[in-house]
Amino acid sequence: MSSFSPKSFDPLVPESFSEESKVMVDFIAEYYRNIEKYPVQSRVERGYLSEKLPDTAPYGPESLEDILKDVSDSILPGLTHWQSPNFFGYFQANASTAGFLGEMLCSGLNVVGFNWISSPAATELESIVMDWMAKMLKLPSSFLFSGTGGGVLHGSTCEAVVYTMAAARDKALEKLDGNENITKLVVYASDQTHFTFQKAAKLIGITKSNFRVITTSFSTKFALSPENVRAAIEEDIKAGLVPLYLCGTVGTTSSRAVDPIKELEKISREYKIWFHIDAAYAGSACICPEFRPYLDGVELADSISMNPHKWFLTNMDCCCLWLKQPKFLVNSLSTNSEYLRNSATESNSVIDYKDWQIVLSRRFRFRALKLWIVMRKHGSANLMYHIRSDVATVARDHRFEIMVPTNFALVSFRLKPQLESISSELNRKLMDAVNSSGHTFMTHGVVGGVFYIRAAFETIMTKERHVDDLWKLLQEKAQILLLHYLN
Amino acid sequence: MSSFSPKSFDPLVPESFSEESKVMVDFIAEYYRNIEKYPVQSRVERGYLSEKLPDTAPYGPESLEDILKDVSDSILPGLTHWQSPNFFGYFQANASTAGFLGEMLCSGLNVVGFNWISSPAATELESIVMDWMAKMLKLPSSFLFSGTGGGVLHGSTCEAVVYTMAAARDKALEKLDGNENITKLVVYASDQTHFTFQKAAKLIGITKSNFRVITTSFSTKFALSPENVRAAIEEDIKAGLVPLYLCGTVGTTSSRAVDPIKELEKISREYKIWFHIDAAYAGSACICPEFRPYLDGVELADSISMNPHKWFLTNMDCCCLWLKQPKFLVNSLSTNSEYLRNSATESNSVIDYKDWQIVLSRRFRFRALKLWIVMRKHGSANLMYHIRSDVATVARDHRFEIMVPTNFALVSFRLKPQLESISSELNRKLMDAVNSSGHTFMTHGVVGGVFYIRAAFETIMTKERHVDDLWKLLQEKAQILLLHYLN
Repeated sequence: MSSFSPKSFDPLVPESFSEESKVMVDFIAEYYRNIEKYPVQSRVERGYLSEKLPDTAPYGPESLEDILKDVSDSILPGLTHWQSPNFFGYFQANASTAGFLGEMLCSGLNVVGFNWISSPAATELESIVMDWMAKMLKLPSSFLFSGTGGGVLHGSTCEAVVYTMAAARDKALEKLDGNENITKLVVYASDQTHFTFQKAAKLIGITKSNFRVITTSFSTKFALSPENVRAAIEEDIKAGLVPLYLCGTVGTTSSRAVDPIKELEKISREYKIWFHIDAAYAGSACICPEFRPYLDGVELADSISMNPHKWFLTNMDCCCLWLKQPKFLVNSLSTNSEYLRNSATESNSVIDYKDWQIVLSRRFRFRALKLWIVMRKHGSANLMYHIRSDVATVARDHRFEIMVPTNFALVSFRLKPQLESISSELNRKLMDAVNSSGHTFMTHGVVGGVFYIRAAFETIMTKERHVDDLWKLLQEKAQILLLHYLN
Repeated sequence: MSSFSPKSFDPLVPESFSEESKVMVDFIAEYYRNIEKYPVQSRVERGYLSEKLPDTAPYGPESLEDILKDVSDSILPGLTHWQSPNFFGYFQANASTAGFLGEMLCSGLNVVGFNWISSPAATELESIVMDWMAKMLKLPSSFLFSGTGGGVLHGSTCEAVVYTMAAARDKALEKLDGNENITKLVVYASDQTHFTFQKAAKLIGITKSNFRVITTSFSTKFALSPENVRAAIEEDIKAGLVPLYLCGTVGTTSSRAVDPIKELEKISREYKIWFHIDAAYAGSACICPEFRPYLDGVELADSISMNPHKWFLTNMDCCCLWLKQPKFLVNSLSTNSEYLRNSATESNSVIDYKDWQIVLSRRFRFRALKLWIVMRKHGSANLMYHIRSDVATVARDHRFEIMVPTNFALVSFRLKPQLESISSELNRKLMDAVNSSGHTFMTHGVVGGVFYIRAAFETIMTKERHVDDLWKLLQEKAQILLLHYLN
C-alpha cells in the first residue's frame, strides 16, 4: 500500500456520501435486528482488540466494506449491548429512531453554534426547545426564557453540576471579597447523590474536607433528611465555614430515591445556599401529572437539570439545565476574544451559548435539533405512554425481596437467605451467574452494608417476554446457588 | 391532536429505522448539493425562529416529512453554512463522509463506555487509535500506551486544558501541603493563546490576578518570547508565588503563530512547571514530515493536545490529549461509586476512561470509532495530501498586504490605505461588505491594534474557482470602498 499516491482527493461528495451512508444505515438496522443474539455483557478478555487490529493506521485508503467487516468481527463482540432488550444495568441508553435522526442531521449540518452569529438557528432552537421542555415539566416561568430565566443543553449532569457550582462559588467569593476564602466554602449532598457531585467540587477547587456527604437510611427511603442537612450547616457556620451549595436529587442513580425538595429549599433559602435539583433520571417521568408532585417546591431552586438521554428516548448525550438567573453562569464562564467579536453580541440582545459552558467549538450546541425531533416525532402523549408502561412493568412484579422501595422503573431486590450473614456474598454470586450467562445484564448497589441487585426497566425494545425471561433466569440461578449453600 | 391516545408505542423498530434514516441521508446529501445556493452567513433577524415555531411541543406525533419541511423552511435559513466551499471564517468544521459514517455508527450503537466493563471495545479502540494518531505525529513513546504514557479523546481543547491544569494544580497542592496555597498558583500563556486558557484557569479556581497573559509582537511573529516568559516567572517567584502551568501553542487561532516549543520546555523543566502543548489546529499538519519540526522538543512536555475536528476531516467534535503521566489526570478526576464497582476495575489492569474526564455517561467515549473510520477510510497518504493542497492554495496567492506571516493555511491580510489612521475602519467595512454579500464568510483579528481579515483555507469542498471568486469579490468591494473614501 505504501506505493499509493493520491492525485486528487474529495472527502465529501454528495453522491458517494448518500450511497455509503445508506450502507451504514442498513448495517445498524441489521445490528438492531440481531441484537438478542449477542451476549448482553461482552465476554472478551482484556487486551483482545490489540491482537485483532494492526498497530498503525493504514497508508492508503480502505473500503467501507472492509471496515464494516472489522466492526462485525472485532468491535461488536467487545460491546456490552446497551440497546439490548435484555439489558437491565445502569439505565438503558435511550436510543430511538427519532433520536438517531436528530443525531444524523446535527452531524450532517456540522455547524458550530458557539455564538448567535455563528448559526442563529442553533441558538434560537435551543432556547425554544428548552422552553418546550420546561413547559412539559410545568416548571415555573422563572426558569423559562419566555419568563425571567433560561436554559441550556449540556452533555451530562456532570457538566451541569460543575458549571452551577462554579457560578455559586464565584458569586460567593465576590461577596466574601477574595479568592483566598475559597477554602471556607462547603458543599452538601447525600450519600446517594451521583458521584459527579464530589468530582465537580474537586474540579472547581473546593477543599476535600468541605464536601459534606450526608448519610441516608432506610427510614427515609434513602432520601436526605432535612434535619441532618440543617445540623451539618449549623455546625459548619459555627466552625467559621461558608455553606455554598446543596444538591437535591429526584431519582438517585442507585435506588431512584427522591429527596424532599420543598424542605431542602426552605433550608437553602434560610442560609442563602445555592440549591440545585438533579432530576437527571426522574425528570423525564415528571412530564406525567402523577409524578409531577416530586418537583413540588422547584419554584425556590436556583437551578434544575434533567437528562433526556436517560428516559426520554433521546440518544446520548443530552442534559437540560435551567437557571433562574443565568447571569451567574455567564459571569463565571464568559470570556471573549477578538476574532469572536461581532455586532450581535455587542448589542447584548442575543444569547451566546459559549458563555454558558466551558467548551467553545462543539457541534453539540445543535443538540437542540435532536431533542426537537424527539419531541415532535413522538409527541408528549407517546412520551408519557412510554414512561407509564415502564413503571407498569415494575409494578406487576412481586418476586424476590424488594430492598429499597421501588421508585419509578427501577427494582432493587435481593435473594433473601435464611442466614443473613451470607446475603451479600450470595447475591453477588447470583448477579455474576445471571450476567455471565450472557442472557441479561444487571448492576448492583449497596445500602446499609447490604448488597442488592438493580434491574432498570427504562426500556426501548424490551417486551413482556424479556422481563419474564429475566425472572425465570434469576429463579433458576438462585435455585442452583441455594442448593450449593445447603450442601 | 389532543384526542390522540396511544395504544402501543415502539420508538425503535429496525424496518422503519432503516427507511426513515435513508430519507434523512438523502435530505443531508441534497443539502450538500445545494449548499452554494444559501448565503454563507445567515441573514435572519434576532428572534426570527420563535415567530415560525409553535411555543409548545406537540401532543401527538408528527411525521418526518413535516419535520424536514420545517428544517428546510425554518432552520436552514438560520444557519451559517460551515461546510460551504465559500466559508473561510474561523476554521471550517471538517466534515467528511468518513467522519459522518463514524458519527452514525457511534450514534447507532449508542453504547456508553465509561469504564472498561461497560463496553471493552470502546475503551480498547480508544487506546489503539490514540497510539495510531501518536505514531502518525511521530510522538515519542513516552506519550503512547505501547510506551509509558497514554491518551484520551475529549470533545475540545477546552476540556484538555481544564483537565491537565487541574491535574497540575492537584499535583502542586499536594507538594505545597494544603488547599489554601491555591491562591499562590500562577499560569502562563501568550496573548495569542486560545481564550479557553483563561476560562480553564478561572474554572479550576486560579486567582484571576495570577493569569499571566504574555504580550507577543510582530518581531516574534506573534510567538511567545522565552525571555519574557522567564522574566514573568522570575518576578512571580520573587513575589512568593508558585508558577504552575505554561501553555505553548502550535498554530494559534488568530494567526496560526507557532510558539518556540524547545525553548519553552527548557524553561518549564528548569522551574518544574507543567508544560502543555496546544496543537489543536496545526497538529494535523504535523503528520507531514515538512511540518513535523514545529513539534520538535515535544519529548519534554507533560501533555499535548490536537483536534482532528479542525483539519483532519473528522466531524465535530474530537480532541486528542496525550499525557506522559496519565496518573496525574486520574488522581484529579477519578471517583468511584458502588454501582460502578467491578472486578476488571479492581484488578487495576484496565483503563476506565471515566477517570480521565469529568463526564460519566457519554456516548462520546466511542469517538474512537469515528477517528478510526476517518483514518482507515482516508489513509494517511490522503490525509497528508489534503493538508498539503490547502497549504498550496495559500502559497499561490499574493494579493493584499499580508499582516501576519502566513502559516499553514490561514491568510491574515488587510487592504492598506494611504492614510494609516483609517486602516482599521476601512478593513472592518471591507469585511462587512464582503460577508453581507452572502457569497462568502470571513472573520477578523487584531494585532498591535491593527484590524486584519482572516481567510482560513482548511477546505473540504472548496475548489480553485471558490478561491478566485473570493479574491475577485474582495477587490470589487475594496474598489467601491476606496472610491467612497476618496470622495
